[in-house]
Amino acid sequence: MSSLALLHASQLVTLAGPARPRVGKELSELAIIRDAGILIRDGKIERVGPSDEIERILNANCIQDLEAARNVKTVDLGGRVALPGFVDAHTHLVFAGNRLDDFERRARGETYQQIAEAGGGIWSTVEKTRAATEDELFNQAKKRVDWFLKCGTTTIEAKSGYGLTLEDELKILRVIRRLNDETKLEIVPTFLGAHAVPRETSAAKHVDLVINEMLPLVAKQKLAEFCDVFCERGYFDLEQSRKVLTAAKMLRLKLRGHVDQLSNSGGAKLMAELKAATADHLEKTDEQGIAALKSANVQPVLLPGSVYALGSTSYPHARAMIDAGLAVVLATDFNPGSSPTASMPMALSLACTQLKMSPAEAITAATINAAHSLNRGDKIGSLEPGKTANVAVFDCEDYRELAYWFGISQVQGVYVHGQQI
Amino acid sequence: MSSLALLHASQLVTLAGPARPRVGKELSELAIIRDAGILIRDGKIERVGPSDEIERILNANCIQDLEAARNVKTVDLGGRVALPGFVDAHTHLVFAGNRLDDFERRARGETYQQIAEAGGGIWSTVEKTRAATEDELFNQAKKRVDWFLKCGTTTIEAKSGYGLTLEDELKILRVIRRLNDETKLEIVPTFLGAHAVPRETSAAKHVDLVINEMLPLVAKQKLAEFCDVFCERGYFDLEQSRKVLTAAKMLRLKLRGHVDQLSNSGGAKLMAELKAATADHLEKTDEQGIAALKSANVQPVLLPGSVYALGSTSYPHARAMIDAGLAVVLATDFNPGSSPTASMPMALSLACTQLKMSPAEAITAATINAAHSLNRGDKIGSLEPGKTANVAVFDCEDYRELAYWFGISQVQGVYVHGQQI
Repeated sequence: MSSLALLHASQLVTLAGPARPRVGKELSELAIIRDAGILIRDGKIERVGPSDEIERILNANCIQDLEAARNVKTVDLGGRVALPGFVDAHTHLVFAGNRLDDFERRARGETYQQIAEAGGGIWSTVEKTRAATEDELFNQAKKRVDWFLKCGTTTIEAKSGYGLTLEDELKILRVIRRLNDETKLEIVPTFLGAHAVPRETSAAKHVDLVINEMLPLVAKQKLAEFCDVFCERGYFDLEQSRKVLTAAKMLRLKLRGHVDQLSNSGGAKLMAELKAATADHLEKTDEQGIAALKSANVQPVLLPGSVYALGSTSYPHARAMIDAGLAVVLATDFNPGSSPTASMPMALSLACTQLKMSPAEAITAATINAAHSLNRGDKIGSLEPGKTANVAVFDCEDYRELAYWFGISQVQGVYVHGQQI
Repeated sequence: MSSLALLHASQLVTLAGPARPRVGKELSELAIIRDAGILIRDGKIERVGPSDEIERILNANCIQDLEAARNVKTVDLGGRVALPGFVDAHTHLVFAGNRLDDFERRARGETYQQIAEAGGGIWSTVEKTRAATEDELFNQAKKRVDWFLKCGTTTIEAKSGYGLTLEDELKILRVIRRLNDETKLEIVPTFLGAHAVPRETSAAKHVDLVINEMLPLVAKQKLAEFCDVFCERGYFDLEQSRKVLTAAKMLRLKLRGHVDQLSNSGGAKLMAELKAATADHLEKTDEQGIAALKSANVQPVLLPGSVYALGSTSYPHARAMIDAGLAVVLATDFNPGSSPTASMPMALSLACTQLKMSPAEAITAATINAAHSLNRGDKIGSLEPGKTANVAVFDCEDYRELAYWFGISQVQGVYVHGQQI
């Protein structure tokens, strides 16, 4: 049995609370303990509390058991802030290359859709990803895994979707599995075979391929926990999205969806109808859509990074969603086209400055609520006894500084299963 | 004589070119050398060129002079991108405390002006800064100096302006001098005694104090190279700003100005009339203002960080300024109220996504043009023989990645006067 005690956090942001996603005023309740510590045993949190309480337990244990005493390590956090590692519930981790040319074109004033129509956009990434070997994809993604960890994120969701053939989608999902196995980052896999309509086929035919060939194999090989679809004009319409997600549900995959990003197509309502875990983006969702999400307890996943990076001002209506009682989640949308950021602190900054969320609401949305949206609310997302000891330490005294100082790294240390990375 | 050779940059972004600020298409000309190196001797750049050329020179030197050979160090940059260290031409480095409460209030929807009227804003920082000792201010600013260096910035301009009494303004300027002397960051001091109207007096009386008491002492003690003023409704009007800057000019200080940030008050024209070095902010400047700046060769300093952090969308018209032939500068506006970022890569991201500048234009604006605006175009801001060896190395292969991936640090190494920090 090895023990680790982290002591003297100025603020230990525990997010202890009810064992369910937080809504309304609960989003502001971080359950902070001042001058606090955590006792970790074999990768799990055994106790959180004031530093002197943790030290007393530690000393008592050591007197009883000399063997244990030799295996105790204590770390003085020196008055820094400690949080549960961030949980990033929406990323496109695995792809080949980058989209620097699109980025330059967008700086010249071209829109996302113009660039896509001109042959850039998703399709250029699909071509490069298809051409890449599994090892190449793994090695490129590994650098990005380090970015996430260095930003204090210890769990991410990762979607396929840049392959769009049976073989290439499975290839991406296998790379995600290997990254989960071989790196310190926990990665929750989502199948997004209906991410775009491949050039070589039609939306209807691609939906058939997804349903009849891809989904059964993905489910059989247990390569994904969730299924996602891009429900949008020019991608997959409501009926096609419903077909894909319904088929996935039959195979016991849980559901997420890219909806109402560029237009209000009723995507939020569809996710409510299907009792999805999450509805993601929602930049164009109206009051009726919000009410539908509430009625089915679907969690909205807000992705301000893509709004920012696309130079748009159509941020999702976070305040209306919080007021309606939705258990809001905040994520990076890490991807090469519309949101090239792996930084959850950057997402916090965007949430506070652009979505008008408070720093506390943003942190709840980036930790415990995100964990629940990934079906892991009982294991991660808060610092409570019994949970995995994933902890991020920041070189500041007040948790609000995480969202306030932007563009710089305040991460001082990251622990995964109680091991410093 | 000690020598250092940095070899094998994938792209050495030299910004070599005419010995003056770059305008129009010149902003896009980065003078990149591929697989390149730099030979540094005693803190100065001796040669830049292809790696094999640098290696040949190195070998020839070593054969001639065995003593020199012992003092040569080579560093393989491993295919990374190298740039001149960023030059941040507008910061408010020295202040006490932070403005976390204002930040939270703004997230609740209050405006900059509402917060100021309610007793937050600049005034709360002035009170804390007045109460702080020189050592306290130094120690708080030292952490921020590290942020700048870690983001790849090697020179900044820093303004006083949170003291607003003779004694407290001099105190801040002395702290700036000490930071310049005792840290690796080069800091160019600017006197901003007319940053806000102190509660205890009127704008007119404060202008008298600035002109009759502060400016003569600042000049006599050589505590500043530039004088700045906040020309804005509720701060100092055009006539008051003209008086302050004219007095500063008589004392041989060069001029900068906070103008047209919240309203178009003719500030750009005033800076043209006074032949200032820079006109900063310019969010509300119109075509006439731009034409005036052009006629007097005043450099616009664009500060998208404060627009972003205030949750505004009134970004300055960078494209119109570039089209008009202005030598645009990009800076962070680092300050606790409206732009809590020390990251020039973040400013590059904002420039490309919000101001619609190209990555190359943004880099020119953040290096050589910024250096010229600080009267140091002959010493820093580009990698050319004879210049100071201030170099930033980034863990990517293409310079555009600096602006593309946002919120994460790609800085791999920073050299100041040829010394790695």
